[in-house]
Amino acid sequence: MKSLFEPESIAVVGASSDSRKIGHIVLNNLIQSKFRGKLYPINPKADEILGLRAYPSLTAIPAEVDQAIVCVPNTLVPSVMEEAGIKGVNSVVVITAGFKELGKEGAILEKRVGEIAKKYGMRVLGPNCMGMMNTHHCMNGTFTNIQPVSGSVAIASQSGAVCSSLLDWSTATGVGFSTFISVGNKVDVDEADLLEYLKDDPNTNVIGMYVEGANRGRELVRQAREASKKKPLIILKSGRTSSGSKAASSHTGALSGSDKVYDAAFRQANAIRVNTIDEMFDLLQVFSNMPLPKGDGLAIVTNAGGHGVMAADACSDHGLTLASFEKETIDKLKGYLPEAANCYNPVDVLGDASADRYEFAIKAVMEDPNVSCVAVLLAPLDTVDISAVASNLATFAGNVDKPVVGAFVGGTKTDAGIKLVQEANIPCYDSPDRAIRSLGAMVRYRKMRDSAGDDAPVVMEGDKQKVREMIDSVLSTGRTSMSESEGKEILRAYGVAVPEEITCATAEEAAAAAARIGFPVVMKIDSPDIAHKSDVGGVKVGVSSEAAVKAEFELMVSKVSARVPGAHINGVTICQMVKGKEVLIGMTRDDQFGPVITFGLGGVFVEIMKDVTQSIAPLTRTNVDTMVRSIRSYAILTGARGGKAADIESLKDVIFRIAQIALDFPEISELEINPVMVGDEGKGTYAVDALVVLRRDN
Amino acid sequence: MKSLFEPESIAVVGASSDSRKIGHIVLNNLIQSKFRGKLYPINPKADEILGLRAYPSLTAIPAEVDQAIVCVPNTLVPSVMEEAGIKGVNSVVVITAGFKELGKEGAILEKRVGEIAKKYGMRVLGPNCMGMMNTHHCMNGTFTNIQPVSGSVAIASQSGAVCSSLLDWSTATGVGFSTFISVGNKVDVDEADLLEYLKDDPNTNVIGMYVEGANRGRELVRQAREASKKKPLIILKSGRTSSGSKAASSHTGALSGSDKVYDAAFRQANAIRVNTIDEMFDLLQVFSNMPLPKGDGLAIVTNAGGHGVMAADACSDHGLTLASFEKETIDKLKGYLPEAANCYNPVDVLGDASADRYEFAIKAVMEDPNVSCVAVLLAPLDTVDISAVASNLATFAGNVDKPVVGAFVGGTKTDAGIKLVQEANIPCYDSPDRAIRSLGAMVRYRKMRDSAGDDAPVVMEGDKQKVREMIDSVLSTGRTSMSESEGKEILRAYGVAVPEEITCATAEEAAAAAARIGFPVVMKIDSPDIAHKSDVGGVKVGVSSEAAVKAEFELMVSKVSARVPGAHINGVTICQMVKGKEVLIGMTRDDQFGPVITFGLGGVFVEIMKDVTQSIAPLTRTNVDTMVRSIRSYAILTGARGGKAADIESLKDVIFRIAQIALDFPEISELEINPVMVGDEGKGTYAVDALVVLRRDN
Repeated sequence: MKSLFEPESIAVVGASSDSRKIGHIVLNNLIQSKFRGKLYPINPKADEILGLRAYPSLTAIPAEVDQAIVCVPNTLVPSVMEEAGIKGVNSVVVITAGFKELGKEGAILEKRVGEIAKKYGMRVLGPNCMGMMNTHHCMNGTFTNIQPVSGSVAIASQSGAVCSSLLDWSTATGVGFSTFISVGNKVDVDEADLLEYLKDDPNTNVIGMYVEGANRGRELVRQAREASKKKPLIILKSGRTSSGSKAASSHTGALSGSDKVYDAAFRQANAIRVNTIDEMFDLLQVFSNMPLPKGDGLAIVTNAGGHGVMAADACSDHGLTLASFEKETIDKLKGYLPEAANCYNPVDVLGDASADRYEFAIKAVMEDPNVSCVAVLLAPLDTVDISAVASNLATFAGNVDKPVVGAFVGGTKTDAGIKLVQEANIPCYDSPDRAIRSLGAMVRYRKMRDSAGDDAPVVMEGDKQKVREMIDSVLSTGRTSMSESEGKEILRAYGVAVPEEITCATAEEAAAAAARIGFPVVMKIDSPDIAHKSDVGGVKVGVSSEAAVKAEFELMVSKVSARVPGAHINGVTICQMVKGKEVLIGMTRDDQFGPVITFGLGGVFVEIMKDVTQSIAPLTRTNVDTMVRSIRSYAILTGARGGKAADIESLKDVIFRIAQIALDFPEISELEINPVMVGDEGKGTYAVDALVVLRRDN
Repeated sequence: MKSLFEPESIAVVGASSDSRKIGHIVLNNLIQSKFRGKLYPINPKADEILGLRAYPSLTAIPAEVDQAIVCVPNTLVPSVMEEAGIKGVNSVVVITAGFKELGKEGAILEKRVGEIAKKYGMRVLGPNCMGMMNTHHCMNGTFTNIQPVSGSVAIASQSGAVCSSLLDWSTATGVGFSTFISVGNKVDVDEADLLEYLKDDPNTNVIGMYVEGANRGRELVRQAREASKKKPLIILKSGRTSSGSKAASSHTGALSGSDKVYDAAFRQANAIRVNTIDEMFDLLQVFSNMPLPKGDGLAIVTNAGGHGVMAADACSDHGLTLASFEKETIDKLKGYLPEAANCYNPVDVLGDASADRYEFAIKAVMEDPNVSCVAVLLAPLDTVDISAVASNLATFAGNVDKPVVGAFVGGTKTDAGIKLVQEANIPCYDSPDRAIRSLGAMVRYRKMRDSAGDDAPVVMEGDKQKVREMIDSVLSTGRTSMSESEGKEILRAYGVAVPEEITCATAEEAAAAAARIGFPVVMKIDSPDIAHKSDVGGVKVGVSSEAAVKAEFELMVSKVSARVPGAHINGVTICQMVKGKEVLIGMTRDDQFGPVITFGLGGVFVEIMKDVTQSIAPLTRTNVDTMVRSIRSYAILTGARGGKAADIESLKDVIFRIAQIALDFPEISELEINPVMVGDEGKGTYAVDALVVLRRDN
């Protein structure tokens, strides 16, 4: 990756003297950015391009070549790749388009590019990308004509157009970039690779990513988690909704995983997910320019009451609290501000506030120990000298240990003020909401990062050998779904408690088994052909005598046989009745992210209220704590409305064990326990049902 | 109100030759705006101000005066008001500050202003306001130095600073105003008055309001509902959250009602509530410039796939659907666009799109019958001529029957393009999300307006006389809370079914009553002193024999007596057991809006999931339909998960009856039926409990 980010020499294959050609623009950008290494234009028809000696091919260069940037037509790319491999080039940036995004033929061509790279051990960025730049290495290897400011923000984008928007935005707001990577079709290098490099890049303090679909979901989560421990990682993942995803796949052919899974992935990685490009812009501004706040207390300084109210509203919306000032602060403000001013939070310095008055108030609230961040609001009243206030606010740049942001709300008169403040590297927005939202994101990141610690995934022990044998045996009979009792055996092998149960072939056996277990009992049909037993009359709860067990046995078998003709019925299972709160624990296997664990309260809560939460295994203690707490009906588990508190610790234990089973056996494509009965505190958690679906091709 | 909006003559009391004085600025603004009526500066120390003859007092003017604008110090305002009254002035705008917003003394002064106005039948705007302007009457009676464009947007704002932000914004975006009213402290004229005028103002097509707190909530809802039938009404109500409200009351002393009630109020009024000032800006732009869409199908035309995906995401977020094009449209696009272009929705005209290509695509999708609105996106790629695309987009102004908006995403390069498009009166934004959100608001308004119809409040009949007597009798004994059986009598008097029940003083009576009603029965303690019976052991469900009834009677009375010493116990009520789904119907009386009806599913749904909805009585059929459908657990009522459908019609009937009781008896401050049992379809709805709280001072 060092060769990609900090090449010692670059060959531009397809360099051209024609200023309209991409091969020209890229070479020119490299020259303009004052790239310090050797530059080699490659063009068989030229001797010299842009004042540099040109070579007919990579192999004709009489020196080592670290990186090649490829701008030749798509069909020629494989041969250039071969040549690069022979030459010993370390990294290749394929700008050329016309690959996977065009359909089948393009995909075949792209696959060849990948194979050649692998053969020679070269890293490839692209194809179908805008190239990359590293301002701290004086390298602009893209074909954009926008020269961004050097700075601390690293950007990786799956869309070249989003790159162009970000670059254009950066020149307007003065936010500087360290590196800027257009990832294109990701035949080799993807976001996970980039994060691995960027997390240790000393020139990068903030990472922003635009992602449409991940190739290696699990690795992305792993790298994102590592990166976010060191610096904020802001991700705009589009294709969030079904209409968006449809657009995404017609755009790059990227496979968009279910959005809820991405949500879980980014949450577990402590990445800051944003939903719109405005939010990306806004957050990059504050994270690149301001220190992290130490708490969530916000102070507002405003020349307009109305704007203060709006900021206070936004405060609750975005996870901040309106700080209560110390008496000392209030006294200080009262001593300086006019009588009509409000010296409590939001501080109203009044419509005719001078720059001095603003400055005094900002400094006063910043010294208050309850204040962790400050928003400075301005309404363009006739009585205020906007440029004076802006110039004054600009003087805070670089000498604050608490974040301060501006919000100048208007248009014609405020725009120049905003620019002035931004140029000084103080974030400034056009509305209170955007300012507060940005500060809120900082607080959120700070909290996530601090609670992340070195929280390791929880590993559970299980009888692997036994489960392996069971799975093989079931698959060998041609089945892919397991019976409930087989499923429970797997759970037992991994230490999940299941109610005592005995499968009986006859009514007499059943009655005897029930007497042994103790009444009342639950009776369930045992058939590998029936997934949802209760739908076909295959479950009876609370049977309380031997006679009743016998009668129900006959009834159930005949009912089920009639409703599912041809179903193989092993008999009826007699189960211990366990009490508690019903929850659901499930697992589905996502192509991108692997085992996704779902948790929620059973019944209507899952099915109607959709009150569920997801996490990707392996799970840490924090993940599972967050899962359990995050459902809206959590209070039911803690004993709301006079109920008893449930045994949440044993519930968490079961979640970890389910995750372990999923991790240990990739053949299990789906697993659901519904219900899991969580007993009162100390009474344990029981899996009352088990649905296990296998897949063959693993 | 005509005198306020279209005065024939204006006197400026406190006019001054000193250009720094508000009295000078206001007079100068009136002159600059070419006010066509007579202008009279009032200043005892001047003969002439700004070229106009000055008078020492209002009464010294030798002609009629329609409106007076008052800019004198606060303590002088009452005497000016008296003089205005004597002179026969019709409306007064009090710009002067220093009233309610300063505390008690100011409030007294303000009250006097109001009283004098009433005495003389004058309408008063303010005090503590910026004044008002009516561009179509050539009248700028404010003290701002911003001269807005004339146009079709009317603004009323409770914050002068928000006025200044809106004015400054309008000069940047070219959105024009019809009238602009700073309402100030609202001693007399408030938003409801303004709506009454503005809804019929032919120069106003859109109304925007910034509100911190309403004075006459019910009237505001009434006027807003009427206005929104004719034109879109966009309301930014700040003080939404507890921190925001705190800021609001320290700011203007306005009473902010609970935000949920405002939400219900605006929803019922078909007003479009926005939460941030950005959203206000964005929506004013689209509503003032574009026709309403006829459906919700959106077409996206973009030169950037990534932006198209983001717009498609936003589409689902904001209530639009991505339109499916007719084959004809797709063929048309395929015939013109390059092969690599995407001709499905979002239409990707590619990075190097010319203005012509954009134009062709926009026209093609606009002709598609499935398309109701169009968003045109642009990324500032090097290959696109932004000003050409912008100029071309500008040509659509004024000749489209479907709304079209732009989103140019970037900064330095895109800003000029946005300005160019906006100047042509085509809305243009800096992000896909903002563009789509604005179109989504149009679709939402269109749907609301169309479904509003002439939906009249539902009126229910009840035995008023009987309830009146009951209330009087309870109040006369000094009680403010009614017993359950009293509460049920009120319900019965208004046609709400309650289970058959008989209150019994002895165990024997109870057993006999139970036999008559039929087993099983419910037993409940009857005591006016106990509000929550089940908390003290005062409820027993499913008692199924005479013997059990007798035993439970003694047990319950002794338990309750022990737990609530001194409670007066009338006996035990034997009730018919009714089956169904438990819901809660409640009423609280809001100071601003009157009876607020709450509805939700009983038990955990209300208490833990907070799955409730509110509406303000009187209720229309649409209101109650919306209420019942809007709870998240609605599917439980319609028979999800194999359950039977509930008798939703009879449930709605009960909601109407509760609302009627609340409307007929202002003495009832609180009413709650929990649970209401909604039987299966056709089986009716029963009120199983009734909690009625009265207030004395009415």
